[in-house]
Amino acid sequence: MIRSIKVIGAGLIGTSLGLQMKSQGCAVEMIDIDLNNAKLAQELVKGVALDDPEMVIVCVPAAVTADVVLQMLKDYPEAIICDLASVKSNVINQVYALSGVHQNYVSLHPMAGREISGVESARADLFQGRAWIGIDSGNLEPKIKAKVVELAQICGGSIYWMSAGEHDLAVAQISHLPQILSSLLGTQLTNISPDILNLAGAGLRDVVRLAASDAKLWGQIVTMNSDVLTPLLENTITQLTQLKNSIDEGNAGEIADFFKKGKVGKQKIPGKHGGVARQYSYLPIVIDDKPGELARIFILCSQISVNIEDLTIEHSPGQETGLITLALNQDDGEKLSSHLESAGFAVHPIKNR
Amino acid sequence: MIRSIKVIGAGLIGTSLGLQMKSQGCAVEMIDIDLNNAKLAQELVKGVALDDPEMVIVCVPAAVTADVVLQMLKDYPEAIICDLASVKSNVINQVYALSGVHQNYVSLHPMAGREISGVESARADLFQGRAWIGIDSGNLEPKIKAKVVELAQICGGSIYWMSAGEHDLAVAQISHLPQILSSLLGTQLTNISPDILNLAGAGLRDVVRLAASDAKLWGQIVTMNSDVLTPLLENTITQLTQLKNSIDEGNAGEIADFFKKGKVGKQKIPGKHGGVARQYSYLPIVIDDKPGELARIFILCSQISVNIEDLTIEHSPGQETGLITLALNQDDGEKLSSHLESAGFAVHPIKNR
Repeated sequence: MIRSIKVIGAGLIGTSLGLQMKSQGCAVEMIDIDLNNAKLAQELVKGVALDDPEMVIVCVPAAVTADVVLQMLKDYPEAIICDLASVKSNVINQVYALSGVHQNYVSLHPMAGREISGVESARADLFQGRAWIGIDSGNLEPKIKAKVVELAQICGGSIYWMSAGEHDLAVAQISHLPQILSSLLGTQLTNISPDILNLAGAGLRDVVRLAASDAKLWGQIVTMNSDVLTPLLENTITQLTQLKNSIDEGNAGEIADFFKKGKVGKQKIPGKHGGVARQYSYLPIVIDDKPGELARIFILCSQISVNIEDLTIEHSPGQETGLITLALNQDDGEKLSSHLESAGFAVHPIKNR
Repeated sequence: MIRSIKVIGAGLIGTSLGLQMKSQGCAVEMIDIDLNNAKLAQELVKGVALDDPEMVIVCVPAAVTADVVLQMLKDYPEAIICDLASVKSNVINQVYALSGVHQNYVSLHPMAGREISGVESARADLFQGRAWIGIDSGNLEPKIKAKVVELAQICGGSIYWMSAGEHDLAVAQISHLPQILSSLLGTQLTNISPDILNLAGAGLRDVVRLAASDAKLWGQIVTMNSDVLTPLLENTITQLTQLKNSIDEGNAGEIADFFKKGKVGKQKIPGKHGGVARQYSYLPIVIDDKPGELARIFILCSQISVNIEDLTIEHSPGQETGLITLALNQDDGEKLSSHLESAGFAVHPIKNR
């Protein structure tokens, strides 16, 4: 049981954490450098003043995290101090450089919060089902570690422990590089006319979606993770340059190898819910683009207890029709296909991949 | 009225075209170098033998398209000959080099067929609502052009006319480069453990989705479009190298500019149905991952006549919950939010972007 936490930083992450902890019976105080944010957050979580909090959670921008952590270690020597920054080595090294290795300090990264921000977006269930990365280089006391595990569990998540270096490499690979390549594609679209862009299908939109993210936030993140990102980007640039050279030379074997290797990497991503990669059946359906059509499909699914694992919608320029592709367990594919067909839907053949 | 077409190449594209034309009262003959494919396709379209077809449509792999077109121009001098290859300058230049500019030859590219292949996948409605690019450098006779427009219309699409060079640049930008960057990300995932990949959210999956495409097919396409792709890739490599250098140097302004430019490009993509880019409201909802939950949402939408413009599903590792984000017209957002909330759904605040 965690009895009291002080949250420093009343943005999306901090306030969501406060809301959830409060709802589970923990006393909460919300602090922010912006007094309006602090007041709103305190009202939202029905906050109190805590002179002696059990835990202090630092949820401020990554660039100022280390300074705030150091202050908190000084102000609350009896408390467990955690930060939730999305880059780790940089922050932890700054803290250790000035205070040494602290038993009471644990660095955490809940994998949540993408594309939304601000106290007014906060929700108690923001962390529900999210993975947390916890930093442990073998120096954490079991008692402290257990308390932090409890924090994540109360928020509905589980902690995966690794070193700061492992964390920074992992997020560089699974989060920072996808963001960079998506933004890179965006940079190549700035001079194309909307008429041409309008001919594009779902593929372009998928790849470039992340490019809509907050530019300032991402600037900070990649700057603070530069040690890991630089070699990763070098390797990426080398691969792309090799492809360009192969295309220049018309080397069909090397070109095909590039796309094959890309496919191998894509297929390594596990299926949802932490299981092993699942084989799905993909069921394409052409629908009229009007209210009620998607509902009809989902009603038909629930009638025969078919669970939709994933779904994409592809639009057609100049036409009021759309292509829906449902991802299903292989057993469900055939069953649903004939059920939808008998209900009059234009169902295409199932693809297993 | 098109009375008869001969289709060369009984794959997904050719057979789908044959099915649709037959269904609209046109006589069809399906030809393929693989006699089994040809037989199956002829049976599917109830094909006949045509000695004097009005149109011949060449639907063979891009690498052999020019050879087949040249043969058809010789065999059927009275017919209109079209190819449907996905690269244009390369094919057309080969044809013109050996036969000169032919009034009867028109090169077309229906923007359809992604990720599926083969005669058994063919559907009459494959082209429904798809854009076709038609190649015209000002040399096409109105009579011939009208006939080709009719072909696309019978298939449910519309033709956008441009030069071969414009086509090849357009598809390099909106199709080939997204494919290459998605595959590039895939190449960087091959050595990551599934445990780490499992921590990734929807972002990684979106960007890398296209990497699952057919490696051999894509090898051919980028090889044949190398003249356009090489400078585009050079520019892309330069942008990425500049970002790497900015990160190396910790140049925060340049780094932020990169992400800002990416966002500008992403925002240039129009909304669906060929309209101007629309502002959507995004409504996030946390649901239990069980049959019927999505259906309940869509039933509630149709009750109040709300049309869902787009939808994403994000899964949480190790938890049986999912985050659904609905894209809606701005007027519909508030209305649906309160409707879903009163029905017991965990609806998060709307984001407009």
